[in-house]
Amino acid sequence: MAPIKVGILGGTGYTAVELMKLLLRHPHVQIEAVTSRDEKLPRVSESHPSLLGRIDRRMELLDGDRLIARGVQCLFGCLPHGASITSLAPLLDRGVRIIDLSADYRLRDPNTYARWYGESHGDLAHLAQAVYGLPEIYGDEIITAQLVANPGCYPQTGILGLAPLIEGNYIERTGIIIDSKSGVSGAGRTPKLTTHYPECNENFAAYNVGAHRHTPEIEQTLGDVAGEPVEVIFTPHLVPMDRGIFSTIYATPRRAMTEHELLDLYRTYYADDPFIRVRESLPATKDVSHTNYLDIALRVVKGKIIILVTLDNMIRGASGVAVQNFNRMYGFPEALALN
Amino acid sequence: MAPIKVGILGGTGYTAVELMKLLLRHPHVQIEAVTSRDEKLPRVSESHPSLLGRIDRRMELLDGDRLIARGVQCLFGCLPHGASITSLAPLLDRGVRIIDLSADYRLRDPNTYARWYGESHGDLAHLAQAVYGLPEIYGDEIITAQLVANPGCYPQTGILGLAPLIEGNYIERTGIIIDSKSGVSGAGRTPKLTTHYPECNENFAAYNVGAHRHTPEIEQTLGDVAGEPVEVIFTPHLVPMDRGIFSTIYATPRRAMTEHELLDLYRTYYADDPFIRVRESLPATKDVSHTNYLDIALRVVKGKIIILVTLDNMIRGASGVAVQNFNRMYGFPEALALN
Amino acid sequence: MAPIKVGILGGTGYTAVELMKLLLRHPHVQIEAVTSRDEKLPRVSESHPSLLGRIDRRMELLDGDRLIARGVQCLFGCLPHGASITSLAPLLDRGVRIIDLSADYRLRDPNTYARWYGESHGDLAHLAQAVYGLPEIYGDEIITAQLVANPGCYPQTGILGLAPLIEGNYIERTGIIIDSKSGVSGAGRTPKLTTHYPECNENFAAYNVGAHRHTPEIEQTLGDVAGEPVEVIFTPHLVPMDRGIFSTIYATPRRAMTEHELLDLYRTYYADDPFIRVRESLPATKDVSHTNYLDIALRVVKGKIIILVTLDNMIRGASGVAVQNFNRMYGFPEALALN
Amino acid sequence: MAPIKVGILGGTGYTAVELMKLLLRHPHVQIEAVTSRDEKLPRVSESHPSLLGRIDRRMELLDGDRLIARGVQCLFGCLPHGASITSLAPLLDRGVRIIDLSADYRLRDPNTYARWYGESHGDLAHLAQAVYGLPEIYGDEIITAQLVANPGCYPQTGILGLAPLIEGNYIERTGIIIDSKSGVSGAGRTPKLTTHYPECNENFAAYNVGAHRHTPEIEQTLGDVAGEPVEVIFTPHLVPMDRGIFSTIYATPRRAMTEHELLDLYRTYYADDPFIRVRESLPATKDVSHTNYLDIALRVVKGKIIILVTLDNMIRGASGVAVQNFNRMYGFPEALALN
Repeated sequence: MAPIKVGILGGTGYTAVELMKLLLRHPHVQIEAVTSRDEKLPRVSESHPSLLGRIDRRMELLDGDRLIARGVQCLFGCLPHGASITSLAPLLDRGVRIIDLSADYRLRDPNTYARWYGESHGDLAHLAQAVYGLPEIYGDEIITAQLVANPGCYPQTGILGLAPLIEGNYIERTGIIIDSKSGVSGAGRTPKLTTHYPECNENFAAYNVGAHRHTPEIEQTLGDVAGEPVEVIFTPHLVPMDRGIFSTIYATPRRAMTEHELLDLYRTYYADDPFIRVRESLPATKDVSHTNYLDIALRVVKGKIIILVTLDNMIRGASGVAVQNFNRMYGFPEALALN
Repeated sequence: MAPIKVGILGGTGYTAVELMKLLLRHPHVQIEAVTSRDEKLPRVSESHPSLLGRIDRRMELLDGDRLIARGVQCLFGCLPHGASITSLAPLLDRGVRIIDLSADYRLRDPNTYARWYGESHGDLAHLAQAVYGLPEIYGDEIITAQLVANPGCYPQTGILGLAPLIEGNYIERTGIIIDSKSGVSGAGRTPKLTTHYPECNENFAAYNVGAHRHTPEIEQTLGDVAGEPVEVIFTPHLVPMDRGIFSTIYATPRRAMTEHELLDLYRTYYADDPFIRVRESLPATKDVSHTNYLDIALRVVKGKIIILVTLDNMIRGASGVAVQNFNRMYGFPEALALN
Repeated sequence: MAPIKVGILGGTGYTAVELMKLLLRHPHVQIEAVTSRDEKLPRVSESHPSLLGRIDRRMELLDGDRLIARGVQCLFGCLPHGASITSLAPLLDRGVRIIDLSADYRLRDPNTYARWYGESHGDLAHLAQAVYGLPEIYGDEIITAQLVANPGCYPQTGILGLAPLIEGNYIERTGIIIDSKSGVSGAGRTPKLTTHYPECNENFAAYNVGAHRHTPEIEQTLGDVAGEPVEVIFTPHLVPMDRGIFSTIYATPRRAMTEHELLDLYRTYYADDPFIRVRESLPATKDVSHTNYLDIALRVVKGKIIILVTLDNMIRGASGVAVQNFNRMYGFPEALALN
Repeated sequence: MAPIKVGILGGTGYTAVELMKLLLRHPHVQIEAVTSRDEKLPRVSESHPSLLGRIDRRMELLDGDRLIARGVQCLFGCLPHGASITSLAPLLDRGVRIIDLSADYRLRDPNTYARWYGESHGDLAHLAQAVYGLPEIYGDEIITAQLVANPGCYPQTGILGLAPLIEGNYIERTGIIIDSKSGVSGAGRTPKLTTHYPECNENFAAYNVGAHRHTPEIEQTLGDVAGEPVEVIFTPHLVPMDRGIFSTIYATPRRAMTEHELLDLYRTYYADDPFIRVRESLPATKDVSHTNYLDIALRVVKGKIIILVTLDNMIRGASGVAVQNFNRMYGFPEALALN
């Protein structure tokens, strides 16, 4: 079987390098092109020395005609939001399938996009057909999607941590608290004072309290699951570590539930999902580090349900779930190249 | 003025070494003795090389008679809980003033102690007269106390973060969520698998969810402030950093409040407290690292009040507040040796 | 093709868990048994929650008869030194092939072993036939070896960093300085004060200066390469990070050499070795993290040759090179399961 | 006694904030002004939230006339190199005493400056009278100096680690190896890719091998001590921690020396220096963290002398030694405000 030729758009960031490492392990993928908007067009291994001897080819400017002529069937978009819309729309028009790791096609309602991203959405046509790429929720739509909007890292913890309770209408749909903690790689590769080592090392801080762009993404999908609006209070924090997200979620049950009931509910709900591990012991980010697993534990304390969720923001939170989506789109086993 | 001779009981741990560093800066204190239960009786600077050339004397076995004969007036207890009761009771009987950094005299109700610490309290007489050493709440009682039960690190964030709202009856007194994150030094100096570097580095984890011993300590003091029971859900987490606590507190107001109102309320409440900084920007543990400050910020999100509180668990959370209590007990300016 | 059944002896440590993760990716390996000396015999995933859902079987006590009866052909020894001799000798007598990750069979001369490990070697018969498992030096002997003594993490940097210069007799064979820096996982999984998080975090320290047990291992192999004794001064340091070794090696050339000459020499020497990357840019441990690569760069400064070498102590330094040896022993491509 | 009014030039960086914290503890100092080249002129505590409530005044543009009119007698220069010359020269002409923490006045020979800093030195007049501010070597000259060139962090470890051996002519004066490791704050506060958290966390790397600007600074002072040229090979590395420098120095003795002899030599040499701790145990950066101590240990291995030196790059390496110099210049006890 001939490998599927893929391209990586925006090769200099962290999601790109993690994605390339996963794809190098995929038996049916050939990385045909890596593009960059940096005019210097460095070799991939100059930008990412971990890839020395593995991908030494030069990055190239994005040229849709050439990519298609060379047989590229699927593109992974690793561009910043805003830039994605501009770059991807013409490629979509020409029939290429795209898994976009940016936020540009995640929010179905363009008004919501405009409100949270500060500019109107420039590609309503493709936005309308984009599928939110969370396999455990939209698994069937992903199979046939042309454009998959790969989900955000934080939202996956909120959505998958709450979906079984929301779907069965077990909890109140307002006042849900998602207190999330993330490693620093989630902030991307562009140096800033807040991610300068001596500023964020040995430091724990909250940021964007009540104002983080992942809030509407969580509410949109939980709303789909509920069939009515769901409202969450989302508080992100920065942890001095490279990778990992830990979300501590507090929900108010409509009727008393035991931990045993909750465990049963979640295990049944995720019975067919190879990457969701409903566990009895408390989770820790290191247990899922460098993997595509999302771990969930459940506790009942003084009448509140506490859901503790972990994932690796680079793999499960971005590049791993992108490969999981790719596997669905091309009919491969869901976990191929992800163990 | 002759210096006040003090002793440190249990000199090998982290609270002891931090305390000694602070006391070396205190112009009216002389460290007369450092005791240890380790039969080897190492030099202080062997146990803590940071004190090389500063405190090289040998540790000694605890001998109350000798301490009193040498003029020691005040002792700082840095022993583990349980051991404190046994060691401190006879010294209290002989009139020594003690600031106990363990948890042994913090819970007023011996039944609560027994329930959370798994053994009955062995010194009800002194327990009855102990003063909980949180200067911003019990400042006057501390001045004349013989026995000060120095407060826990986590509880200070919960209590001082909520006191103005509780006292003014602005929030619901159940369902309060305290989601806390602590650096690793809070776990003490005894090596364990959970604090082994390769286990907790690059890791973020929850522990003792709904079952941490600091819960009744928070509820006791908030109950004092309220004049009726207060119930909190307390979730501690471990952060891969040496020091610092960050608590994110969620409370439900009885009536809508603005951030401006909250800021006013807190600034007024803590107007005379030199170590409480009510700030507009979001706090970060590094801003209070190695200091005795406790920073508080306030936000209103979707009808919930979010209170964000930080402190350094070694200084403000233990040894610094102990010196602050000492200053109150001996009539020194509250901030002496703490800047 | 039926998979090769393997066993892991001593399943609770770090080398074991890293090894199991690699072997799970190996298409021709079946992990048949994981042994432990811990009487509780926990599930593998209880000891290593990262393996939840991947290896949940219970560990078992070591029983050679049963292992052989179940078809186990190859064992990976992850026991501490000393314990390895006792456990492995009877298994070797029964014909099992073993890759021993401990230090017990690395030093050919039992007197050297006794001097550095403080006890006489108890299995001279197998010691005599053990092959030192450094594929780039002893690649052919490994193919047919029954007992492979997997090399130490530090020694690989010293040996492979110097071999081309030693073999060609380009440098003085005394006064060679190997200044090495290691992440903390190299110290193993048993909690100790020196690896307690608040002790070694934010700390950089030297240890065992001039007295580390890896010294004779380096000198033995470089002596083989030279055909005469080679003497190194080896200074290990502990770096506050999970994994990675960086060695800065200083050698005195017999005649002036340029960096260009050195680059040519090393690239030729390692031309057939897929995991040695001779690079022009300065190396960094993160570039080889979680990989089996060993990176080398070369500089000439004021007449000295400086060789900078990095590897991941868990993978290339232990479990990865063990799989590389396994691949050689069983005729698989050298890099199988290692990318 | 009226306090001495001082000014801080360049208040936004790390050396400035550490300096202000030390000066706040100094009983005879008043911080009269903090300047910035940032037109926004933030409050000091906006730039450094750790100073909230401690120094809330606005930064100001540098105006020599105004500073002098307000009674400022001494300035601490915390500007980048290059900028220091331009800003300080006119102030020196007007008689202000300056402790310059930049590198601009450290190299006595303007040709050396030009070679290493890439531009010719623009203030030869003041350069000629500058005193290199290493109190243990140039203690007397510092007392009366108008311009003190505060020493670099790395150079102090090399110079003070070698001075006793160089002065007594015990070691060869070429081929000396200084293998140094530094925390990240040494790189300053300007965000760069190399100091971006996810790049340098969990990473250990060498940089500027054989080409670091601190090399001539070390050689100049050791040359002064020797009375003839001394040549060092200096290799800096970056350690994933906030602060601390560890230098491992290798020297070749002219005749065999014992560790006991070395200990005696060093203890005698530094007998009057309160901040030099010659210790028997191996040093660790954490033992000197947040202090002005410089620790030295000595070992003899296979005929080489190994000197291990640690300091805190922010305190002893910059702001602490600046205060130590200030104390000398103004007749205060050398250790005032530094314990």
